[in-house]
Amino acid sequence: MYRSHNCGELRSSHIGQEVTLSGWVQIGRDLGGLTFVDLRDRYGITQIVFNMDDNAELCDQARKLGREFVIRVKGTVNERSNKNAQRPTGNIEIIASSLEILNASKVPPFIVEEETDGGDDIRMQYRYLDIRRPNVQQNLIFRSQLAIATRKYLSDLGFIEVETPVLIKSTPEGARDFVVPSRMNPGEFYALPQSPQTFKQILMVAGMDKYFQIVKCFRDEDLRADRQPEFTQIDCEMSFVTQEDILNTFEGLTRSVFKDLKQIDLGKFPRMSYDEAMQRYGSDKPDLRFDMEFIDISDRVKGYDFKVFDESEYTVAIVAKGAADKYSNKDIKKLTEWMQRPQVGAKGLVNIKYLANDEVKSSIGKFYSDDVLNEWKTDVFTAAQGDLVLILTGEKEKTQKQMNVLRLEMADRLGLIKEGDFKPLWVVDFPLLEWDEESERFHAMHHPFTSPKQEDMDRMLTGDHETMKSLRADAYDLVINGSEIGGGSIRIHDRELQSRNFDLLGFTKEEAEDQFGFLMGAFEYGAPPHGGLAFGFDRLCAVMNGQSSIRDFIAFPKNSSGRDVMINSPSLIDDQQLVELNIALDLKDKD
Amino acid sequence: MYRSHNCGELRSSHIGQEVTLSGWVQIGRDLGGLTFVDLRDRYGITQIVFNMDDNAELCDQARKLGREFVIRVKGTVNERSNKNAQRPTGNIEIIASSLEILNASKVPPFIVEEETDGGDDIRMQYRYLDIRRPNVQQNLIFRSQLAIATRKYLSDLGFIEVETPVLIKSTPEGARDFVVPSRMNPGEFYALPQSPQTFKQILMVAGMDKYFQIVKCFRDEDLRADRQPEFTQIDCEMSFVTQEDILNTFEGLTRSVFKDLKQIDLGKFPRMSYDEAMQRYGSDKPDLRFDMEFIDISDRVKGYDFKVFDESEYTVAIVAKGAADKYSNKDIKKLTEWMQRPQVGAKGLVNIKYLANDEVKSSIGKFYSDDVLNEWKTDVFTAAQGDLVLILTGEKEKTQKQMNVLRLEMADRLGLIKEGDFKPLWVVDFPLLEWDEESERFHAMHHPFTSPKQEDMDRMLTGDHETMKSLRADAYDLVINGSEIGGGSIRIHDRELQSRNFDLLGFTKEEAEDQFGFLMGAFEYGAPPHGGLAFGFDRLCAVMNGQSSIRDFIAFPKNSSGRDVMINSPSLIDDQQLVELNIALDLKDKD
Repeated sequence: MYRSHNCGELRSSHIGQEVTLSGWVQIGRDLGGLTFVDLRDRYGITQIVFNMDDNAELCDQARKLGREFVIRVKGTVNERSNKNAQRPTGNIEIIASSLEILNASKVPPFIVEEETDGGDDIRMQYRYLDIRRPNVQQNLIFRSQLAIATRKYLSDLGFIEVETPVLIKSTPEGARDFVVPSRMNPGEFYALPQSPQTFKQILMVAGMDKYFQIVKCFRDEDLRADRQPEFTQIDCEMSFVTQEDILNTFEGLTRSVFKDLKQIDLGKFPRMSYDEAMQRYGSDKPDLRFDMEFIDISDRVKGYDFKVFDESEYTVAIVAKGAADKYSNKDIKKLTEWMQRPQVGAKGLVNIKYLANDEVKSSIGKFYSDDVLNEWKTDVFTAAQGDLVLILTGEKEKTQKQMNVLRLEMADRLGLIKEGDFKPLWVVDFPLLEWDEESERFHAMHHPFTSPKQEDMDRMLTGDHETMKSLRADAYDLVINGSEIGGGSIRIHDRELQSRNFDLLGFTKEEAEDQFGFLMGAFEYGAPPHGGLAFGFDRLCAVMNGQSSIRDFIAFPKNSSGRDVMINSPSLIDDQQLVELNIALDLKDKD
Repeated sequence: MYRSHNCGELRSSHIGQEVTLSGWVQIGRDLGGLTFVDLRDRYGITQIVFNMDDNAELCDQARKLGREFVIRVKGTVNERSNKNAQRPTGNIEIIASSLEILNASKVPPFIVEEETDGGDDIRMQYRYLDIRRPNVQQNLIFRSQLAIATRKYLSDLGFIEVETPVLIKSTPEGARDFVVPSRMNPGEFYALPQSPQTFKQILMVAGMDKYFQIVKCFRDEDLRADRQPEFTQIDCEMSFVTQEDILNTFEGLTRSVFKDLKQIDLGKFPRMSYDEAMQRYGSDKPDLRFDMEFIDISDRVKGYDFKVFDESEYTVAIVAKGAADKYSNKDIKKLTEWMQRPQVGAKGLVNIKYLANDEVKSSIGKFYSDDVLNEWKTDVFTAAQGDLVLILTGEKEKTQKQMNVLRLEMADRLGLIKEGDFKPLWVVDFPLLEWDEESERFHAMHHPFTSPKQEDMDRMLTGDHETMKSLRADAYDLVINGSEIGGGSIRIHDRELQSRNFDLLGFTKEEAEDQFGFLMGAFEYGAPPHGGLAFGFDRLCAVMNGQSSIRDFIAFPKNSSGRDVMINSPSLIDDQQLVELNIALDLKDKD
């Protein structure tokens, strides 16, 4: 027997008991006659005492233990004279009567504690040491608990978890697929799913009614910050439902897991149309933990001989409360440069400072008198003394994006975000299609299976090009604290409408048939109305814990080159494997 | 609103209520003045009545409904005059007041009922219709419930579900890997996991203590009957445990899910050593639902001038109770031929019939007198009048395998297997290594990470070739009704022992380091003693339902060529994809 108890469970009530514990040596302290060892496992830390007077040999052994040694200790639970209130086991200690080293350890390359000196790379290489750190361990435990709570909630509602296949078919739509050569079908490839979308719709046609799955998905994309080639979704689909049914169901799920795991009542989620979100926040995933709404001043600023504004499509302002006096001209210059970085791409940044001493200072003071600016202060900006107004101007869509970046940055700088605050939001009524100027084609705003709203169906089937831009979909995103947790839509369940959508998206009849013929075929055999949604599971974990990186909630994440540095993967494979798979390397054009 | 109730929930208590139902038309019957429609969904079937007298137009519409049409019906719940006790909703019917066709259906290519006229191929092509059949649907629901019960049991014990990566590293050991070319790392490949073995061990080194995962695994093997390229495991690992702890934990899990889902108490599982199982049943997964144990008569039959037996390594008998008079010489001849098929490969089949009339007839009567055979009847075979003794002889291992086949076949023919009977068994004490004559090397009986028993460790580190054959492992399989549900072992957690094992298995130092260096490295930083097990989830589903094929419990299985015929995958991919992945097709040697 390796242990009678774990390292987190002994209390005063155990005093006097003989126990056996196993775990890792967190730290040893040698105080002359006494040697103390903090023994750690997933459940906690228990102090072990070796007494020179009682057993010199044993105490000697204990002195030689290194960090991260794995040991088994027998002893008696004793009341601690010097209690540690910070630790659940802090009232007791174990007076050791025997000690066995189960496995030694080399000196770890970084400190295995919450605060570590290990950089990202070395922690990933020694991920097995990194995960021993209690904060990382707690993240993984949280993830497991969230999965359990999610499954319980959905299965209590009658959802069935169905595993959809991982080896499926490549469809050049959307992001890049990872592909898998088929040995048994030479020259052919499977693809790993970017999502189980078509399979969950097939399950609805199959009458499964309420489906869910917590499922791995794959995208071979260049890894931007916080993207992983494999990620996990809570994937759901329902039959005979309207958008309202779906929003209610998954609002219920979200509230339930926040209540269960964070003891937070999120209340009823507000809803906002896509158009309104863009207008008020320049983003389809606005962070509602703070205000600083967009103020569209496009018309108001025209007619003062300031050509930049006069000729601009869109001029927008935000009010940074109380920031006027904090921001020197030098600060403003730095902020302007920050906004001018290629990642953001603003041309300039206009400011109006309503200083505490009632003065007005502005980078456009040449064109707009103090009187005008003071009039705007209350009339347009609802600003107060001490507020800083920041203004961007230009092409509408670009400027909205830039102002969204600035809004988030200013909230961060001004400390407007309260830790532990959670602001959910449903964004609804997304456009069905978006026109891409560059490729001169429509893209599906959500995906090619999303249905237009009931009232837009006829217009979609018969309308002209311009009409297509105005179609709205029963598509929705759940946003929490400015992070997109997930989204979904009511789907097309009619062959003709689906076929029309593929046409609009630039598929030839042959391409549509080749890639999605099975789904359109299924729609001819009694497909029910259906819809669904997927939540990013990694993202939900991170957001619920107020953390920004999903990597912290993935046991074995890959780095930005898609590598697992612990196992050193990907790697070369045998020539024999290539031959069997009927493929050859083709690196000739690469240097 | 598509429905106020589902098609399985209305009862007498609802009589008089206005309801809305949606579902599929199972069947329509036109009885002149009345038209009946059976409306089906996942939850049941409800009878809808359209009355010509009440609403001729509506009744006309109903008459035109085809099988599998999706409709919405409003109406009033009415007491049925002609009640159907077979159906939970059989006391009521809906008098329709409105009808809407939500989607029409072409005539399905096979009957969408439990008993269908559809062959395997067409059902797989139209899997969305196949899954509408209540038996298939119930299989998928059972699978979902089994997953829920498994997760609940394990998480209640403190197990954490950790997702291990799907894109890992190819190791040419074991079965063939599916591989995935890495676009970002030209010339390199990921592999899909055959199991999360090394990752779960890393998680133990990481202090996660109790890990589980219900996880997809992948093997690129030629698909024998009932193998799938992707399959699902209940994968588990524990730290600071002995074999006893693991067997108790997963015996508990198995008993719990049988109790929850089948209302069956399996009782305490018997255990049997590998050696004993081979001796008594010629198999490491004996079916204990019937006796017919092996009787080793190698010595007893020698010395009667029957050269075949005299020179044979191993002669073994089974007693087929009451079969002597049923099996004519012609039947015996047919059975012999069946045993001589290449798949089984027996050279011959010896029989002794202890006929009901007290006569003895035997194919070896020339060498063994009736007196001798009658003496054996009680003394060796414990046979009775009417029993048929079947005997095979030859090289021990081969003969055991053949007799195992014969034993199972005879049990089937004689109807010895009672439906609904479940006989679990732990097979323990497997050999660590098996010597492969052909390749002249050792193979790991379980896998390369399995530990020898404590008492065999020194012998493993220092022993000679013959010693290696006698090493035993703390490795175990759970067998139910002759099916291997899964197995596991106590693992090596020491670098030197692991390195020695790789040596024995024919790895060079470089190969071992390249493929498993990360694991051996991890063993140097305080790896705890650990062990675990994996259950085949698809197999468990099938065995619990007394079914032989795992395909019936997989939503979208692949056929024996690894194809999904519904989506037509695998398939060709774009040249552009190949270029991006730095690979080319190499089909030149294939005809």
